[in-house]
Amino acid sequence: MRVKRSEASLIERIRRAVPSVSGAGRRADVPAGIGDDAAVLQFRRSARWAVSCDSVLENIHFLAGAQPAHSVGYKSLARATSDLAAMGAAPKFFLLSLALPAQRTGAWLDAFGKGMSQAAREFGMLLIGGDVARHPTILVSVTVFGELPFAARMRSGARAGDLLFVSGRLGAAAMGNEIVLRGLHRTAEFKPLLRPLFYPEIRVDLGMHLANRRGVSAMIDISDGLSTDLARLCAASGVGARLRLESIPRVSVPASLVQRGFNAGQLALHGGEDYELLFTARRAAAKNFPAAWRGVPLTRIGEITPQSRGIRLIQRNGRSELLRPRGWDHFR
Amino acid sequence: MRVKRSEASLIERIRRAVPSVSGAGRRADVPAGIGDDAAVLQFRRSARWAVSCDSVLENIHFLAGAQPAHSVGYKSLARATSDLAAMGAAPKFFLLSLALPAQRTGAWLDAFGKGMSQAAREFGMLLIGGDVARHPTILVSVTVFGELPFAARMRSGARAGDLLFVSGRLGAAAMGNEIVLRGLHRTAEFKPLLRPLFYPEIRVDLGMHLANRRGVSAMIDISDGLSTDLARLCAASGVGARLRLESIPRVSVPASLVQRGFNAGQLALHGGEDYELLFTARRAAAKNFPAAWRGVPLTRIGEITPQSRGIRLIQRNGRSELLRPRGWDHFR
Repeated sequence: MRVKRSEASLIERIRRAVPSVSGAGRRADVPAGIGDDAAVLQFRRSARWAVSCDSVLENIHFLAGAQPAHSVGYKSLARATSDLAAMGAAPKFFLLSLALPAQRTGAWLDAFGKGMSQAAREFGMLLIGGDVARHPTILVSVTVFGELPFAARMRSGARAGDLLFVSGRLGAAAMGNEIVLRGLHRTAEFKPLLRPLFYPEIRVDLGMHLANRRGVSAMIDISDGLSTDLARLCAASGVGARLRLESIPRVSVPASLVQRGFNAGQLALHGGEDYELLFTARRAAAKNFPAAWRGVPLTRIGEITPQSRGIRLIQRNGRSELLRPRGWDHFR
Repeated sequence: MRVKRSEASLIERIRRAVPSVSGAGRRADVPAGIGDDAAVLQFRRSARWAVSCDSVLENIHFLAGAQPAHSVGYKSLARATSDLAAMGAAPKFFLLSLALPAQRTGAWLDAFGKGMSQAAREFGMLLIGGDVARHPTILVSVTVFGELPFAARMRSGARAGDLLFVSGRLGAAAMGNEIVLRGLHRTAEFKPLLRPLFYPEIRVDLGMHLANRRGVSAMIDISDGLSTDLARLCAASGVGARLRLESIPRVSVPASLVQRGFNAGQLALHGGEDYELLFTARRAAAKNFPAAWRGVPLTRIGEITPQSRGIRLIQRNGRSELLRPRGWDHFR
């Protein structure tokens, strides 16, 4: 982390807010932390590490007027960490690249730091470096490092005949996002419904468990919607899939939102940012799968088929149609 | 690198433009490259790695109307790689987080990719992942990974009595920046002077050489100006310094710019983005230092003193004054 003169005070505040490693020689695995040109990591013999970066941009990924700074800090780290969870990696370190206007360097930055700190503690991560710049809007970019105790669980391991599972329930974050977009987020009745959007549960322990579980063949986190992320898993594996609409565990939508046109099925199918895990397992091994793991539901929602069959959605009446990805895409 | 549907074509174009590792099992040291939730790196036994991130933002770090896309691509990777050079690390991999408006996804992105590819080839780096998003202005964030064959050379190793050196010449990038800021960059006479700003030379080989050279005690790259980066080195080491103004190797400023008030001494002292290496060496070892290494001048510009002396600038007439950092700071 470059220390600049007045930037130095910002960096110092972030460093104090978030669990971090500074200077040299404090930890054997971080010979150099915050305060030099680069951080230095000392990896254990034959270690495998998962690395990923993710950006959270004001007016693209969040509205500063609607989403508390604490949540922006929490979620910026949580989103990136979900990529580690989807590989079965244990989160360890992160770099933070932050750009923001001068007027966000006071209370906003303090709350942001507290939120990021909460996420770092939950996931067991340490800040090891980064950089700070000034920009008219808030830009957060996080690079995460996770250790792989087992082989990584890739998107590409699914085979025809495997069963398809999802963790948790889908659609709650998209419901929250729709509430914000419609300007309903200040309504007392709807405020509690924003929590899944602002503080998504990241399946770190479940990801590590599944990566080590016999028979699990492929895994991805649902960041951009089930229809989109299933298409990615299928493309990476060279397979098709049958998805049963009625099996998808979905958010319960209050009647007042149903009246406004909110549809639980559509939210669960295409809504992003739930960060649940979508995974496949060999049929024989999957027979013994529990219906939940440490309180998180694991639901069978379909099967993997040959690629030539495409990705088909089975309706309640038994009829099927080709499923088109309709989740989040910046350039669509 | 998340593959989205229409983002997928952008990512594919970047992947093809830049030396990269995709998919699983292509290289022993990259068990998983572009195309999964995270990249996986397999580190050699007891390896130490330097990691750093750096952002390049439109209208903050560059003007899209003045700086060619090819240069933005080149420099985004070069800037981050300079942090590895300053640690003595060998550049190996990078992650790219890119946000840009739809109208930049054609010719601009192609030229950006070519520039980044040129830098990646020069430095011997491979793209292993990243993410793409849409944003009204261009945002580039790069995370770099470099292997440390020797102990890292930190900012904090300088001691009173050490000699102070700098590589190359200083002020050329700041002169180019001033030409752009004054709107002179379209003048044929001044165009060649923009090259040090648009295509900075990164001292990768020199950094590795110095990290392995006996007696070199501390090192930093000059990204924000000599006065600022010397202050950082001194702060990290807990020392002061004496800097001789007339010893600083400086850019030659053409008469037509001197008339416009350009001052070589000020540019060399406070101008950023030269990415030369500032380093200290024990006096006994430094006696044998060559005046140049592989064609790059290594110039003694001062000495390290006790912290209580502060950082003093010795003028041509022998008088000295306290040197205040006046380089680049986003929040000053």
